[in-house]
Amino acid sequence: MPELFPATDRTRVVREANRAVYDRDAIYGILDEGFVCHVGFAVEGQPFVIPTMYARVGDWLYFHGSAASRMLRGASSGTPVCITVTLLDGLVLARSVFNHSMNYRSVVALGKAVVIDDAGEKLAALEAFTEKLIPGRWNDARQPNEKELKATSILKLPLTEVSAKVRTGDVEDDAEDYALHVWAGVIPLRLVVDAPNRDARCDASIPTPAYAVNYKR
Amino acid sequence: MPELFPATDRTRVVREANRAVYDRDAIYGILDEGFVCHVGFAVEGQPFVIPTMYARVGDWLYFHGSAASRMLRGASSGTPVCITVTLLDGLVLARSVFNHSMNYRSVVALGKAVVIDDAGEKLAALEAFTEKLIPGRWNDARQPNEKELKATSILKLPLTEVSAKVRTGDVEDDAEDYALHVWAGVIPLRLVVDAPNRDARCDASIPTPAYAVNYKR
Repeated sequence: MPELFPATDRTRVVREANRAVYDRDAIYGILDEGFVCHVGFAVEGQPFVIPTMYARVGDWLYFHGSAASRMLRGASSGTPVCITVTLLDGLVLARSVFNHSMNYRSVVALGKAVVIDDAGEKLAALEAFTEKLIPGRWNDARQPNEKELKATSILKLPLTEVSAKVRTGDVEDDAEDYALHVWAGVIPLRLVVDAPNRDARCDASIPTPAYAVNYKR
Repeated sequence: MPELFPATDRTRVVREANRAVYDRDAIYGILDEGFVCHVGFAVEGQPFVIPTMYARVGDWLYFHGSAASRMLRGASSGTPVCITVTLLDGLVLARSVFNHSMNYRSVVALGKAVVIDDAGEKLAALEAFTEKLIPGRWNDARQPNEKELKATSILKLPLTEVSAKVRTGDVEDDAEDYALHVWAGVIPLRLVVDAPNRDARCDASIPTPAYAVNYKR
């Protein structure tokens, strides 16, 4: 049996409920494929949404605090955030404008984010960010020193209140629209990687690592 | 002289301020290239961040209300939102983990969103969404009827409090790290489009339109 996240009043997908996904493995698969999330937090009633890097470690989502940390640090017991990860898979061109859509996979995680103070936990999170982004890089690059760790702001969110919304597959038109003489179909979208560009100051004797040459997302 | 958005306390880029962009044309260029935004709004102190389609029309950002509309409709004078658009351009592999980064372009727009009730304005917004997504499609597809317009929720945000953050170009390492024997460089990322897949129920006599065959982002 798949393990499901409980659908709370805040995470239950109401609109297009057939696209709802609560299965933990499916949701973790989406989180592990993406590498940039959008973090939402509110300051005096004004929401802010900031893109940042993240990595899942077990049932926690670690994310770079950068822009948000100043505002989030106030709440030592955690401040309410929403972390959303969206992957775009295609444009769905239906016969009617109304049924135009996108194929996508999107995860929404709610809860209270906590600022990480422990240097060891910070280091582990940075390793997870780096290895998520490009596996193999952590051991090649110079790892963070104490001063850099202090200057890095990382937060974590427990993955307890989470849901996903996923649309896949073909066009869905209203029954009477299938007779229309209108082309319909799906245009797939993909994030691709081009050949790595060596830094101008990187000595030509240093081989481009296989993880950069063969990098795929 | 470029026309600049005023940097308010809420939109001024504080961290990595050298990446800040307030130039209106540059910001509108980013908004016009993207097609999915993340909308942030708060309900009883809990922020929500939802991906949705949008289009800029003049100095307004129109966005699909879908998931958000139920919650936003309460405030007839507008409810505070943050709309963020992020384009990913590359992974920056520095010699040190600390200087790893991404090349990206991100716009943050703050303000009060208003639900659109006027059918004509809704129709114009849907045309803008469709033509932004895939120019030429609006005139081919069956356009929305009155019932569909009523069932569609669209909001708009005035583009008055807006800033962008942009990182481009090469690796930037600390001076002493350039001597390290570590490969450094940038791996470009791009969203690409694969060949369109005709809907199984789309008659083969209907030619695939040029805008689908030649579609690029």
